[in-house]
Amino acid sequence: MNIGFIGLGIMGTPMAANLVRAGHTVVGYDVSEQRLDELVSHGGKAAGSLAEAVAQAHIVITMLPDSPQVEEVVFGSAGLLEYGAPGLLHIDMSTIRPETSRRVAQAATVKGIRAIDAPVSGGERGAVDGTLSIMVGGRAEDVESAREVLGVLGTTIVHVGPSGAGQTVKAANQLVVGGIYGLVAEAIVLLEASGVDPAAGLDVLAGGLAGSRILELKRHSMIKREFAPGFRIDLHDKDMGIIIAAAREAGVALPLTGVVAQLIAAARAQGHGSLDHSALLKVIERINA
Amino acid sequence: MNIGFIGLGIMGTPMAANLVRAGHTVVGYDVSEQRLDELVSHGGKAAGSLAEAVAQAHIVITMLPDSPQVEEVVFGSAGLLEYGAPGLLHIDMSTIRPETSRRVAQAATVKGIRAIDAPVSGGERGAVDGTLSIMVGGRAEDVESAREVLGVLGTTIVHVGPSGAGQTVKAANQLVVGGIYGLVAEAIVLLEASGVDPAAGLDVLAGGLAGSRILELKRHSMIKREFAPGFRIDLHDKDMGIIIAAAREAGVALPLTGVVAQLIAAARAQGHGSLDHSALLKVIERINA
Amino acid sequence: MNIGFIGLGIMGTPMAANLVRAGHTVVGYDVSEQRLDELVSHGGKAAGSLAEAVAQAHIVITMLPDSPQVEEVVFGSAGLLEYGAPGLLHIDMSTIRPETSRRVAQAATVKGIRAIDAPVSGGERGAVDGTLSIMVGGRAEDVESAREVLGVLGTTIVHVGPSGAGQTVKAANQLVVGGIYGLVAEAIVLLEASGVDPAAGLDVLAGGLAGSRILELKRHSMIKREFAPGFRIDLHDKDMGIIIAAAREAGVALPLTGVVAQLIAAARAQGHGSLDHSALLKVIERINA
Amino acid sequence: MNIGFIGLGIMGTPMAANLVRAGHTVVGYDVSEQRLDELVSHGGKAAGSLAEAVAQAHIVITMLPDSPQVEEVVFGSAGLLEYGAPGLLHIDMSTIRPETSRRVAQAATVKGIRAIDAPVSGGERGAVDGTLSIMVGGRAEDVESAREVLGVLGTTIVHVGPSGAGQTVKAANQLVVGGIYGLVAEAIVLLEASGVDPAAGLDVLAGGLAGSRILELKRHSMIKREFAPGFRIDLHDKDMGIIIAAAREAGVALPLTGVVAQLIAAARAQGHGSLDHSALLKVIERINA
Repeated sequence: MNIGFIGLGIMGTPMAANLVRAGHTVVGYDVSEQRLDELVSHGGKAAGSLAEAVAQAHIVITMLPDSPQVEEVVFGSAGLLEYGAPGLLHIDMSTIRPETSRRVAQAATVKGIRAIDAPVSGGERGAVDGTLSIMVGGRAEDVESAREVLGVLGTTIVHVGPSGAGQTVKAANQLVVGGIYGLVAEAIVLLEASGVDPAAGLDVLAGGLAGSRILELKRHSMIKREFAPGFRIDLHDKDMGIIIAAAREAGVALPLTGVVAQLIAAARAQGHGSLDHSALLKVIERINA
Repeated sequence: MNIGFIGLGIMGTPMAANLVRAGHTVVGYDVSEQRLDELVSHGGKAAGSLAEAVAQAHIVITMLPDSPQVEEVVFGSAGLLEYGAPGLLHIDMSTIRPETSRRVAQAATVKGIRAIDAPVSGGERGAVDGTLSIMVGGRAEDVESAREVLGVLGTTIVHVGPSGAGQTVKAANQLVVGGIYGLVAEAIVLLEASGVDPAAGLDVLAGGLAGSRILELKRHSMIKREFAPGFRIDLHDKDMGIIIAAAREAGVALPLTGVVAQLIAAARAQGHGSLDHSALLKVIERINA
Repeated sequence: MNIGFIGLGIMGTPMAANLVRAGHTVVGYDVSEQRLDELVSHGGKAAGSLAEAVAQAHIVITMLPDSPQVEEVVFGSAGLLEYGAPGLLHIDMSTIRPETSRRVAQAATVKGIRAIDAPVSGGERGAVDGTLSIMVGGRAEDVESAREVLGVLGTTIVHVGPSGAGQTVKAANQLVVGGIYGLVAEAIVLLEASGVDPAAGLDVLAGGLAGSRILELKRHSMIKREFAPGFRIDLHDKDMGIIIAAAREAGVALPLTGVVAQLIAAARAQGHGSLDHSALLKVIERINA
Repeated sequence: MNIGFIGLGIMGTPMAANLVRAGHTVVGYDVSEQRLDELVSHGGKAAGSLAEAVAQAHIVITMLPDSPQVEEVVFGSAGLLEYGAPGLLHIDMSTIRPETSRRVAQAATVKGIRAIDAPVSGGERGAVDGTLSIMVGGRAEDVESAREVLGVLGTTIVHVGPSGAGQTVKAANQLVVGGIYGLVAEAIVLLEASGVDPAAGLDVLAGGLAGSRILELKRHSMIKREFAPGFRIDLHDKDMGIIIAAAREAGVALPLTGVVAQLIAAARAQGHGSLDHSALLKVIERINA
């Protein structure tokens, strides 16, 4: 299959490499020459322009930082809607606003292009290993056409609803993840300020109804204040912006999420943008010292 | 061993029955005659007064609703400090304020009584099955003396620190549990308002970094709005009061917990006090309709 | 002076009429024919297109609902930057994102157009009476050129800083206004639930350190649950979106504002969008019943 | 009139001195000898015990730090209920929990003693000048009997409802005051981070719907970071504890207040307990740096 791959960052490059390894012809495009060279070193081809990456493709995958970049690639004058062949399948794996995904899908349909949103979780590790979780929104038949390719990139592929639904589920995921970090941070601060060994305390929590994947994976590093990423605060802050926008579009108020968003914004304001999102603990500590 | 057991409610009665079954002589006391009769039907003995339950005991277990009841049993003129024999081991398994546990332990020491705090999680099911998780605060040697008896009541027994530490860990536990319910509730409301099937969405969340015991056990009932308890909102609201007091005593600010406490208070204000704590979802729904 | 006036809504029409009354030639434009007719009835002229309203103007005033409309009028192919004469002064009196105002000003400068942001407070009453408060951002000399015209529309005209500063001050204003409504609502709910006459209670508050313009003007109507606008919840909800965006652009976390924004979103979700913003009281009531 | 005055702190001493000056016989009691000497220097008499201050009094005024001290003075074995003569009028001017005031009044009634709650606002300045605002809860006839004496201490005396109502209104007052400080702090941080002169910005806010006594009196000192008290963070933190307790007793959830309470707790945790409550600004700054 000819696959155009737009956006060769920390996630995109290993994903594109996995597609090459699975036997696909991958033509990549990125604003960075260096990243294109890396794709070539993995056996992919480098396009000289967005149009070139799109023109011969059966499938175009986009893995971009945020909504404006996706809008530019799709709606821009040198973009996907302009150069994509009718019948093309566009899989956007970026994490962006659900409303943008819906607009992309609508505009694509007009051009005879099929578009689905397929944001992921699982991080760099999952991208390298091909073990991402993929939340897919779109028409059932389009999702089916994408399954083979998505199966190269991830192990869990769930069709959660129509266009934008993948993004909404990703938003819900990030809302819960950010919130649990905040709660665990408050638990640690309470335990320590009360003179209780946080490791012993969190061991108990991890084994009961308070248990969570985050407590399981991150409690020891949080207690030791080890915050090497992982998933960066900057990115989680961007995601909180998406969540707040998604709630506004859906017309719902989310009071806890409103506070979590401000705490993550505070982590960034305090200069922790490049730390792991578990560094939310530093915000709860700083508010107390 | 002669065990006095004070407080024969939903939790206390099956716990006392388990102790009888393990071969201990259990003398119970409760303000309700009916509950005393039930203990007798399990093979225990009914004391006519608090003093009587305490006087011959090697160990006194208290399982009471809140701090004031524990204070009355311990400090009251007909109470444990007055009638307990020197050398007595007092195990308070109620969920109360850490500061009350510390005062109880100090006053007990003066009288030659050993006191530890040992609140539990695991609910009525865990009390009946003898599979509670028990968080213990106190001197190491006193905790050791209690292990045999605690081993009848629970499967996880962790000594987390000095007097009050058991209560602090329980507070941290309830803080995280209440908060996760709030986050899951907001995720459900966001998904539903966006036209996404919440079951499919939460399935994805449950399998990734957003995963938690609560998502695992409660997502289906929450989506169906089945809120039979389980652990009642009223009790979680009481526990939030303890958490806020514990934070105040420790001199720490917990911003997320401050909001969670008000949302649980709202559940009670809306008349959901006797529903399961997962009914926090009703608060997030109502704020949106 | 030839003044183009774009956006003849509840605010724009009386403002344009005041400019006519002060002797200016006002050429209005709006998507609604009916509103154009109303301007003509006040002595203004109706433009057949945006370009026509802009082309002969010395000053163009825009009074539009939100950032996208301002962007379209300014950057659109039939818009202000395309048709405005060099030397034109553009006064944007809409409430929009500070960052949009900065982009408008930069792009205008390139075309030789001078642009300032001048959002207002004071509502429909102030628009009709010409007693608005006007917060102005831009270069000092441009603000000076605008003073005569702004003096027709308002009584308080304050130059608060460079481009976007007017919008930032308006954002700060709305943040405080929304928050005080929330606080007064919580005070009323606490008083009533405690069996205290809220009128007597708020009278005391109004006379002391808790006193505010809102308590002075709105306490009686709030206690009577009279919520005829005034300034609509829908608009305040839009403004909260601007505030959250402005905080994000400035890189600051605002925890209280994060909660206030969700409460106002809740008012809208509950269907109170067309009530006065003091109807935030209905949200605090509903969370308790 | 013979007046017993219990609690001669920063507020109590000038209040007692004003009563002496108005011609009353004031017998004071305090745990501090030095404070008693100061009362004597103002023309009052020093009691050697609580009982002595109470025994001959027609009116006993208490001005104490918190609920436990009031409970001890009233219910203690050497206290007011034990030694007060039938017909005595007890005016508690401390800021305490409404529920404590109701219990005091009930117990007093049994002993033939009349008790009202009369907390104040206006601070040390108001105590010295006799210009306090006094919020009174109790039976109308008892409030009437107190008016002459209260008129010496304050200029605004409002009977707001039955026993405890004075405390509830004081709680509502402190809730609004603490919240407005938080909002103004967030406005300042937003303005400064956006490069807008906060003095110019707040001047505009002060003149419109966002205006408040706090903006009027404190905006200049807040912008200059001058936080000499005034009313100390420690005391406002204590008051937030009372408010949260009062809301719990009234069965209401107050989401904004829940956050404000945590922010004021943070101010204390950060070591600002002895600064003016406007130092809440330091918390909003610190969360952003």
